Amino acid sequence: MTLIIQKYGGTSVGSTERIKNVARRIAKFRSRGHQVVVVVSAMSGETNRLIAMAKEFQANPDPRELDVMVSTGEQISVALLSMALMDLGVKAKSYTGAQVRILTDNAYTKARILKIDEDKIHADLDAGYVVAVAGFQGVDDTGNITTLGRGGSDTTGVALAVALKAEECQIYTDVDGIYTTDPRIVPEARKLKTITFEEMLELASLGSKVLQIRSVEFAGKYKVRLRVLSSFDEEGEGTLITFEEGENMERAIISGIAFNRDEAKITVLGVPDRPGIAYQILGPVADANIDVDMIIQNVGHDGMTDFSFTINRNEFARTMDILENQVQPHIGARGVIGGDRIAKVSVVGVGMRSHVGIASRMFRALAEEGINIQMISTSEIKISVVVDEKYMELAVRVLHKIFELDQVS
Amino acid sequence: MTLIIQKYGGTSVGSTERIKNVARRIAKFRSRGHQVVVVVSAMSGETNRLIAMAKEFQANPDPRELDVMVSTGEQISVALLSMALMDLGVKAKSYTGAQVRILTDNAYTKARILKIDEDKIHADLDAGYVVAVAGFQGVDDTGNITTLGRGGSDTTGVALAVALKAEECQIYTDVDGIYTTDPRIVPEARKLKTITFEEMLELASLGSKVLQIRSVEFAGKYKVRLRVLSSFDEEGEGTLITFEEGENMERAIISGIAFNRDEAKITVLGVPDRPGIAYQILGPVADANIDVDMIIQNVGHDGMTDFSFTINRNEFARTMDILENQVQPHIGARGVIGGDRIAKVSVVGVGMRSHVGIASRMFRALAEEGINIQMISTSEIKISVVVDEKYMELAVRVLHKIFELDQVS
Repeated sequence: MTLIIQKYGGTSVGSTERIKNVARRIAKFRSRGHQVVVVVSAMSGETNRLIAMAKEFQANPDPRELDVMVSTGEQISVALLSMALMDLGVKAKSYTGAQVRILTDNAYTKARILKIDEDKIHADLDAGYVVAVAGFQGVDDTGNITTLGRGGSDTTGVALAVALKAEECQIYTDVDGIYTTDPRIVPEARKLKTITFEEMLELASLGSKVLQIRSVEFAGKYKVRLRVLSSFDEEGEGTLITFEEGENMERAIISGIAFNRDEAKITVLGVPDRPGIAYQILGPVADANIDVDMIIQNVGHDGMTDFSFTINRNEFARTMDILENQVQPHIGARGVIGGDRIAKVSVVGVGMRSHVGIASRMFRALAEEGINIQMISTSEIKISVVVDEKYMELAVRVLHKIFELDQVS
Repeated sequence: MTLIIQKYGGTSVGSTERIKNVARRIAKFRSRGHQVVVVVSAMSGETNRLIAMAKEFQANPDPRELDVMVSTGEQISVALLSMALMDLGVKAKSYTGAQVRILTDNAYTKARILKIDEDKIHADLDAGYVVAVAGFQGVDDTGNITTLGRGGSDTTGVALAVALKAEECQIYTDVDGIYTTDPRIVPEARKLKTITFEEMLELASLGSKVLQIRSVEFAGKYKVRLRVLSSFDEEGEGTLITFEEGENMERAIISGIAFNRDEAKITVLGVPDRPGIAYQILGPVADANIDVDMIIQNVGHDGMTDFSFTINRNEFARTMDILENQVQPHIGARGVIGGDRIAKVSVVGVGMRSHVGIASRMFRALAEEGINIQMISTSEIKISVVVDEKYMELAVRVLHKIFELDQVS
């Protein structure tokens, strides 16, 4: 008998009918001989409703009290799901984070899990129960209710898989798996059967919003098999996120094409090429709470270099202002230029490690379409380029084709 | 510095504006130098909303899961009230029943409080916090969430007053105190400054719905001073329910007139006057889950007697059926008669103990108005009569006047 953790998000439990569907699905799954622990989010909209309510009392709600309120959303979901299971004749029992004892630090609204007591859940599973655990929440060591922050239910699922030594953690969502790229841009985009954690991390941080990056990191760290499936499709096997490259020996070199059209780029020209200069440029940007994505500095000549980085497009004006008024006069750079009509396109794949020439194939393909590359950044398993925004979709399609992502591997 | 427990019911916290009002009231009260622990119910309507939701999943919702759900109502109220207090600059902190650790048995939906841990609350009070405790809920010794049943928030308030050795437990409600009788029937009805627990118990069980009878019993047992006040009236001092008769030395003999118009009476005629006959008559009634109120059996003669009792009017037909078809043939009674157009009127007062002639004054007053008394039943501090329903209001008015309840004592 294998133990599986299943996590259902807010959309999957967004109505009475959907909760009943989830219950039917779990009952069917159990009848095949699995033990099941279900992690459930609040019904979609509920968390936002509670936050809005809190804001009627405090413009910035007290974080401890906000967690007390917001945690009720999942508490209601697990109770309803347990009732739905019982109504199908399946023994079921709910737990809040505090009841399981999912011990966290006391960073309200963004707590981190420290330890999970598994005794009660194991006893219930052995007694034939499906155990429904409220996602997204825990309790600190003095009994205060905490929440893990947005997307925290995925993290709860993975942490339970680690603590209970589950076979697999299944994340049910409204997409049926991870695709080679966005099917809205490339109709030939193909669902991946497997993907490695490293690839998933690169794809997630580049804009694939299927899984919370934190839960992927967590799963990778503890080598938990994660599977992404659709809660609306009964048959699909979703995408398995593995930590073993061995499982994918025969697969394609490139797993997917990610993209992000919300970027802007800034270049500081004629920067004195001396130690500490990167900090002098980016320190004021970080102080203003602006997130920097790509950072590129080429070798200098004549004691000068150019320094470029990308940021979210919404922060473009504010960042330019900081650089022109605070940074440039201070470090004595020649000038600051920038543009907010750019996009980033990345090819991701662990196969890059053992295959040469991926970058040149990518650059040639873009050149043949007349797409100018403005910036390049690479990691071990990823190559990202910045191009004019208007070429983004074309670039994604060309790269999807050239790396044969539409072919079944 | 005195410690006061304040309990606010669902109507008092039924909207954002009302919760803010409660917070202002508490802030003002605190500024007079009191320590305050606030017990809060769910916002009015919320508990019923949650129960209705549960019933979409199970016709008879699982009691354990129902308690998990329903307890979220008070959890939200305490968080919101704490935020409202903080917004006024008052340090505040919320606790669920499980967090305080209000230990109960595990009779879900009607649990009884066994023990309250007072350490955390005392520490918070000493640190200058107002402590907001979710009413109506607790936790059993294995960590399951329990609720105390309808009206349980009053019980939480009294239990906290006992555990924390509070000066007084104040129950805020939508009436401003206990009256000598219902002002809708007798406009001269007067609010009582004090009333004893015994009188309150008689009045509560006779239909004054201000306080849950269980919390009154509880307060009486542990000698907690209870005060009933209006949450909408800033000035009133409400009614103090005391356990010391001494406080009321000079008060009127009669405290109040209670009445109940939902009664029906049944008489079994010509019952053999032998041991066990009361059980033979009422056993089948109890087995059918029908609650019996007054029971009267007069001395018999010629080995026969008549046996009368009252029940809720809704149960009249069912009870008559049981008596005619099961009881009468079995015990060999002469007949069964009954009527469902009756009402019960009671005068209540601890002064009866030391004053003779109350009953005769009552009976004379009713006779002078031509009101026929159908049944009489007395206890140490109460005299109840059954009269034709159409005379009920007249009887209440006459008795209110004859016992001078409209005079300030």
